[in-house]
Amino acid sequence: MTQERKKQMKIVLQMVSGYGGEFRSWRLPEAKADAYTDMDLYVEMAQLAEKGKIHALFMADTPALTNHLETESPMHSMDPLIAMTAVARATKRIGLVGTFSTTFNEAYNLARHLKTLDVISHGRVGWNAVTTSTSAAAANFGQHLASRQERYGRAHEFIEAVQGLWRSWGEGVYLHDKETGQFADMGQIRPIHYQGTYIQTSGPLPIPPSEQGQPPIFQAGPSPDGIHLAGRFASGVYANPFTIEEAKAYRQMLRAEAEKNGRQADEINVFTGFMFTIADSKEEALARRRQLLEFDQDELAQRLAYLGAMVGLNFQGIDPYQPLPQSWLQLARANPGDPRSPRALEVLKEGYSPIDTLAHGVINYHPVVVGTATDVADFLQEWFEAGASDGFSIVPDLAHDGIKAFVEQVVPLLQDRGLFHQDYEGQTLREHLDLPYQYGRQE
Amino acid sequence: MTQERKKQMKIVLQMVSGYGGEFRSWRLPEAKADAYTDMDLYVEMAQLAEKGKIHALFMADTPALTNHLETESPMHSMDPLIAMTAVARATKRIGLVGTFSTTFNEAYNLARHLKTLDVISHGRVGWNAVTTSTSAAAANFGQHLASRQERYGRAHEFIEAVQGLWRSWGEGVYLHDKETGQFADMGQIRPIHYQGTYIQTSGPLPIPPSEQGQPPIFQAGPSPDGIHLAGRFASGVYANPFTIEEAKAYRQMLRAEAEKNGRQADEINVFTGFMFTIADSKEEALARRRQLLEFDQDELAQRLAYLGAMVGLNFQGIDPYQPLPQSWLQLARANPGDPRSPRALEVLKEGYSPIDTLAHGVINYHPVVVGTATDVADFLQEWFEAGASDGFSIVPDLAHDGIKAFVEQVVPLLQDRGLFHQDYEGQTLREHLDLPYQYGRQE
Ligand SMILES: Cc1cc2nc3c(=O)[nH]c(=O)nc-3n(C[C@H](O)[C@H](O)[C@H](O)COP(=O)(O)O)c2cc1C
Ligand SMILES: Cc1cc2nc3c(=O)[nH]c(=O)nc-3n(C[C@H](O)[C@H](O)[C@H](O)COP(=O)(O)O)c2cc1C
Repeated sequence: MTQERKKQMKIVLQMVSGYGGEFRSWRLPEAKADAYTDMDLYVEMAQLAEKGKIHALFMADTPALTNHLETESPMHSMDPLIAMTAVARATKRIGLVGTFSTTFNEAYNLARHLKTLDVISHGRVGWNAVTTSTSAAAANFGQHLASRQERYGRAHEFIEAVQGLWRSWGEGVYLHDKETGQFADMGQIRPIHYQGTYIQTSGPLPIPPSEQGQPPIFQAGPSPDGIHLAGRFASGVYANPFTIEEAKAYRQMLRAEAEKNGRQADEINVFTGFMFTIADSKEEALARRRQLLEFDQDELAQRLAYLGAMVGLNFQGIDPYQPLPQSWLQLARANPGDPRSPRALEVLKEGYSPIDTLAHGVINYHPVVVGTATDVADFLQEWFEAGASDGFSIVPDLAHDGIKAFVEQVVPLLQDRGLFHQDYEGQTLREHLDLPYQYGRQE
Repeated sequence: MTQERKKQMKIVLQMVSGYGGEFRSWRLPEAKADAYTDMDLYVEMAQLAEKGKIHALFMADTPALTNHLETESPMHSMDPLIAMTAVARATKRIGLVGTFSTTFNEAYNLARHLKTLDVISHGRVGWNAVTTSTSAAAANFGQHLASRQERYGRAHEFIEAVQGLWRSWGEGVYLHDKETGQFADMGQIRPIHYQGTYIQTSGPLPIPPSEQGQPPIFQAGPSPDGIHLAGRFASGVYANPFTIEEAKAYRQMLRAEAEKNGRQADEINVFTGFMFTIADSKEEALARRRQLLEFDQDELAQRLAYLGAMVGLNFQGIDPYQPLPQSWLQLARANPGDPRSPRALEVLKEGYSPIDTLAHGVINYHPVVVGTATDVADFLQEWFEAGASDGFSIVPDLAHDGIKAFVEQVVPLLQDRGLFHQDYEGQTLREHLDLPYQYGRQE
């Protein structure tokens, strides 16, 4: 059973603020331009993902304005907690993983929000616990950004306190027995009196367990402090490697860190982020991405210059829509300062123009697959079978349209290849992800 | 128009934690014993209230365990924000007023939650801004309860900062114009750099206005500080007077305070809390309340003793199911220390036994009407026409069943008497309550 499951990849979907991972995809003819404020659309997309048996939705977050909205759509949803609640009420099986900062929340309030959401979703919630390294966020809370050491110090305490509060209502004591008149066993609903350096909270939090006990913890942040936090607490880690080798090394490091903290290596699932544009042919997919690039000519010019620098060439004055001459390509060298450079050079050498090379997504935040559903399935299979990742965090270029393509075209291919489950494993997120039951603090 | 509206009462409904205002009503045969964790039921009740054109739901809250769950159901819902979101998605017109503490929240986080909820509910949210005077809540945040002066100092700043953040995204600048490529006018999305003694926050908060601009503020708390806060900011005030005279005086004081702060008296709506048990006859309603009392014999004994003290008699050894002899009643005196005493004495003198007097709700937190739908409608009419209140905050003994009785039986009576609207005035909470448009800080 466990053996068989191990062979299948887990997939979580990022909808970003409702438009997908490309911040100008809101301008595409297929896009709903006001998706940011349209919760109906958000819920519809979640339902579509659930039809495709996607394990969970994932919502990144930073409590600040983090990109320039003059031409770009926002990086984050209006409010992940509210989006998750809306989705929880309109779906039955899909997991809901939200990002909530340990630096810019109160432990009691967050423990309460997440546990309530876990109860009303019948055990489908996960918490991506991040320390937030954005100064604009700190300013929204009247703070200067604390040092990494302090933020991680607080993060450990914060998670301990939240898990402690979750356990402060004992298991099996929500009796509501009309005959005896006992509503709950108060002997098992007790303060925790958590006294840390950064966090103090008494409890109890008066909420009974959900069907999965409590939400599993996710983590994102590749610093040594981040890896230590993951090793102690995380059931899932969001990663952004650019190559299979990098991914394998990162995954091994996380597994070792779990063991160092007295856990099983398999208790950590790594989800590698990747983006995609799916069309009926690769040329069609590239055309869509060219359109996205052309929406902003200034930024396009900057990206071209950057691409030149990545491969040691000066693109000034060239026609970026023409492939580079052989003589240039022979002079080109991948810049060791950017892990994405070898891939950029490879694409140029395949004979793609600089514009089309950019359209391949070579300087995006994650690896990008631009092509047919088969190309996407092949990519996932290669990474998965190489042991690079336990699963993927998928980011469509444009959310609605991209989810539909993935669910209708890629998922069946992966299922046919035996790489993806035919149905949800159970009712809760822990069941879907084959995570051990947990209620209370990770010791 | 305004004239006509003024003549009609506004009604908000308190569902408490899903069982209603009597903490042992969960044991009644009509009750769903696990209503606390049953969001489906909560939503169903909200929909029922909406059918009855109830202006808004109201959720009280304290971030702590505030009553003893051994035999009582909780005083508050698991999480008002999540309950409001679930209801928002399943209703179209009813307002949603939640209580959120200015002492135990971060201004940026709360501004974000409430504005998002206002956007996705299409302008139906209100915020009951309370300072929270419970030490158990302070302990959940690693604090000792601050002095009233400090809590109110922070409350003023907190509301200013939240309203400032709400306005930090200008009106009319959510453009998402595919032709020009402008998503938003960043010239009108600006930091506020709020610098108070208690609250500092930069912003901007990247969320456009809702259909009502921003949520109206409600307030509860009768201290002079509370009244001052209401005068400055509140569009609605929750009050708990026990007599019409008391209510009138309180309402006048609030109206005067609004004017002192440069606002119109009519901008404050007072909602008087009252509880009810509705049955086909008064005797049947009393029987239900006797049953509630009898669920806990120890507490019943205490309440009887307290009732005795309220009227200057010693009830030890009496048969509480028998009316008091005339000779006793002649000796009885209302205790001036408790404003509910005259009413208790009145009921005893009507010939009701001590148990039945308690069943009248004479020592509840609000006035209680126990009887038929007509009794309830008469009570509301009397208070409303006396100028005691602009509206009512109604608390059924048992939520589901009580809402049904109110909506099906009391609402039509009030409508026939011209005292209650036939339909919602508009789409937003501000429209329902005839409140002026507002976006940004109250100056
Ligand atoms: C794939 C990935 C996703 C992340 N998502 C978020 C996020 O949604 N919100 C956030 O505040 N930080 C996010 N982070 C940032 C990390 O929390 C962390 O702050 C950042 O990577 C700096 O690393 P460090 O804090 O471990 O030094 C993410 C990081 C990675 C690698
Ligand atoms: C009708 C009414 C409802 C109230 N509801 C709440 C509530 O839900 N949560 C809360 O913390 N306080 C609530 N309060 C308490 C007030 O916020 C306040 O803390 C308390 O009345 C003490 O008054 P003061 O703070 O003005 O001195 C309520 C008060 C009244 C009169």
